[in-house]
Amino acid sequence: MDDALTSTSPVRLLIHGANGRMGQALLRLAAEQPRRFDVVGAVSRSVGQRVIDGVPQFAASELAGTPACDVVVDFSLAEAFDAVLAHCLAHGCALVSGTTGLSDEQRNAIEAAGLRIPVLWASNFSLGVAVLNDLVERAARALPGWECDIVEQHHVRKLDAPSGTALTLGESAGKGGAQARYAAIRAGDIVGEHTVQFATLGERIELVHRATNRDIFARGALHAAGWLAGRAPGRYRIGDLLG
Amino acid sequence: MDDALTSTSPVRLLIHGANGRMGQALLRLAAEQPRRFDVVGAVSRSVGQRVIDGVPQFAASELAGTPACDVVVDFSLAEAFDAVLAHCLAHGCALVSGTTGLSDEQRNAIEAAGLRIPVLWASNFSLGVAVLNDLVERAARALPGWECDIVEQHHVRKLDAPSGTALTLGESAGKGGAQARYAAIRAGDIVGEHTVQFATLGERIELVHRATNRDIFARGALHAAGWLAGRAPGRYRIGDLLG
Amino acid sequence: MDDALTSTSPVRLLIHGANGRMGQALLRLAAEQPRRFDVVGAVSRSVGQRVIDGVPQFAASELAGTPACDVVVDFSLAEAFDAVLAHCLAHGCALVSGTTGLSDEQRNAIEAAGLRIPVLWASNFSLGVAVLNDLVERAARALPGWECDIVEQHHVRKLDAPSGTALTLGESAGKGGAQARYAAIRAGDIVGEHTVQFATLGERIELVHRATNRDIFARGALHAAGWLAGRAPGRYRIGDLLG
Amino acid sequence: MDDALTSTSPVRLLIHGANGRMGQALLRLAAEQPRRFDVVGAVSRSVGQRVIDGVPQFAASELAGTPACDVVVDFSLAEAFDAVLAHCLAHGCALVSGTTGLSDEQRNAIEAAGLRIPVLWASNFSLGVAVLNDLVERAARALPGWECDIVEQHHVRKLDAPSGTALTLGESAGKGGAQARYAAIRAGDIVGEHTVQFATLGERIELVHRATNRDIFARGALHAAGWLAGRAPGRYRIGDLLG
Repeated sequence: MDDALTSTSPVRLLIHGANGRMGQALLRLAAEQPRRFDVVGAVSRSVGQRVIDGVPQFAASELAGTPACDVVVDFSLAEAFDAVLAHCLAHGCALVSGTTGLSDEQRNAIEAAGLRIPVLWASNFSLGVAVLNDLVERAARALPGWECDIVEQHHVRKLDAPSGTALTLGESAGKGGAQARYAAIRAGDIVGEHTVQFATLGERIELVHRATNRDIFARGALHAAGWLAGRAPGRYRIGDLLG
Repeated sequence: MDDALTSTSPVRLLIHGANGRMGQALLRLAAEQPRRFDVVGAVSRSVGQRVIDGVPQFAASELAGTPACDVVVDFSLAEAFDAVLAHCLAHGCALVSGTTGLSDEQRNAIEAAGLRIPVLWASNFSLGVAVLNDLVERAARALPGWECDIVEQHHVRKLDAPSGTALTLGESAGKGGAQARYAAIRAGDIVGEHTVQFATLGERIELVHRATNRDIFARGALHAAGWLAGRAPGRYRIGDLLG
Repeated sequence: MDDALTSTSPVRLLIHGANGRMGQALLRLAAEQPRRFDVVGAVSRSVGQRVIDGVPQFAASELAGTPACDVVVDFSLAEAFDAVLAHCLAHGCALVSGTTGLSDEQRNAIEAAGLRIPVLWASNFSLGVAVLNDLVERAARALPGWECDIVEQHHVRKLDAPSGTALTLGESAGKGGAQARYAAIRAGDIVGEHTVQFATLGERIELVHRATNRDIFARGALHAAGWLAGRAPGRYRIGDLLG
Repeated sequence: MDDALTSTSPVRLLIHGANGRMGQALLRLAAEQPRRFDVVGAVSRSVGQRVIDGVPQFAASELAGTPACDVVVDFSLAEAFDAVLAHCLAHGCALVSGTTGLSDEQRNAIEAAGLRIPVLWASNFSLGVAVLNDLVERAARALPGWECDIVEQHHVRKLDAPSGTALTLGESAGKGGAQARYAAIRAGDIVGEHTVQFATLGERIELVHRATNRDIFARGALHAAGWLAGRAPGRYRIGDLLG
């Protein structure tokens, strides 16, 4: 970690899982903020060109040879995760990961790693959804006895209902003491909409999040990376970025 | 104050300004919760019947002769306020007041009274609006750089725009670092609707409060009275009731 | 029927079922529009005072002795309906009725009466809901292949779900070729909210009706009475008032 | 025009203005519906490859040499419009055009062409917005005396306010007798949202259109092309596609 890191130095990122949809979005969006982010390398399973748009490309097997970085941003596959975590621990760099399907051992390894490096893993990196969860818990706590209903809308190809995000919002309401009921709508190509309503006699509060572009997940991961760079070791959560 | 007050004892209320719209709503709504509230007296400028619906009636000039109470709930006029505050101080009872038009001296007297009794004064006792203000400040702090817009709707007889509540919401956003813009709609007999929107690329959060019945203001004042009973002396604010 | 009836003459109303909630609302709201409506009598099952607020009162048994009127507005009980219809036929006055629980014979009698007098019976007199039904059918017809979802919200004491109005909206969508799906929320004291959404790739239309005061049903019935006065005989429907 | 055209024959399209954002979207979306559309040629100002993705490419100067088609779909520039219209008239094919900036002479030429070929020109080809305009006029006519408010939201780079679409919606309300008031919000990257609200005592109707993807404009133009193919000559409008 660069001791001389100041607020104006770009954060050096290594993108792991660079060929996936999230990896591609991360590369594109990081390139739009050159004063904030410097992508020192992109790691994917296999590599064709050695440099794309000025970013050195590495195969997963070449991880040890990647340049020094402040944060590894990982959206890849569970089977590659152990190597990524080991790399971060070996070089003292922070890790932002949204890789899903991790085993219990891998989750425990994240917790353990938090004693030595800053680590943030999350299933949903939308900043707005993170804020909504915080607001829902807070509202539920302040509004005992109000009915709580969650309505979510997603595109017609989404099979599970209610959405994982809706269930998490319900858990947030539950932490505040409210028992949420759910309704799910599948229509068009809606990226994701979640409405949490609290109602009582004569008044109502509606807390709504509307996602219209999948880029917000990559933006959220970059935001997390910028926030995590230079932090003390710890197992951070997306809610820690708020306030 | 009754030392033996337990969670199941009704809170003894004295309603001051009983003939006003708020006073009438307070009496009606308190009567619906006999296990929570016991209205020991109703004070208005002049008195006809001595007892109405089981509640002893008093003229303002008879304030000293009213029964012991835990909380005075005052929605009257500024010129009667000094007597109400003196009564509370003399008898060590709490004061909830929504009387408007107070002078600076009266506002200072409220602050001073907070050293000896629990006092809560507010311009808007809707619990939902109080919660919304809290959420807006919190969201603004967590969402730097997002655009903040406030749209409010009220009935066509409301002349001022934006509404006082909208301006307060804007202040809450401002405490969190956001600069709100306002739009006002006057239509039908809408009691009051406020939408605070935070928007950025690809996602949006909308925080909405809809009031459909003016009773919510009286409910909020009763809620405040129940919360204030038995508290330590202090100058409380509506936001203190939350969480 | 007064041949000299002009657009500025008040419509003479006889309110049948005057003691019910709808009857009381009709009397109150008609009195607010003295240039548009002249209530010549109020009929209820039994009568105490002979005149209330300037309106002559009649028992149901005195129907034959009521003053001449342009329209009978009937919100009473099925067992009184035959007498009301016979009265209208005998005197050539129009009939607006929202009385529910009618038998098949009574419904047939309405159809037959339409050959001789103007008759309008409906289960819901909200003008807004009538308009919404019209818009929903029209939108469904213009948007083949779009998903159609109906979300309705009512107070927690409403037991049936989806609401009758939601089902009617679904039928309107069906007339236009869309198959609606339903979600119902029961919360607070919501008078009634219905959202009909049409969605496809990249765009959505939401058609929303929000009722905040039960008076709208009485207002709708008065509007229907004013519209019906002086019409040719016929069996009218609420949708006929539109456009 | 092919007399043997049946409902299962693909409509033969010539895309004029193929290199523009709309042209590219038209080519991409038409290719997704090969049973409905057959793109026989793509015309742009200058041509590199002669065939792209199976579609023959033509320079504007080669218009006369393009294959026979049922409909020309034109989103280009005003200076190229005269040639396009002449081509359609010469070959008896239909014309769908969204080219803006046309002169009065060109607009008159469209009217005149409608005597000989089917022509549809519009400034906005979103099907949802066309439907909304129809619904707004209809609602306004059915709801005399209700307040009408239009709130529109667009991305922060949009400079004009209210939007052209909002003004058109206001005209639709005006045709129905309502005087609309406007509010505009500029936030995030919102593609376009328009809410038309009608309010009176105790009830409200909200008619909302949300666009989340610019493809809807190309989809609407293709829908118009499919509808126009085989029609009698005439000067059609987007509203003619409805119902």
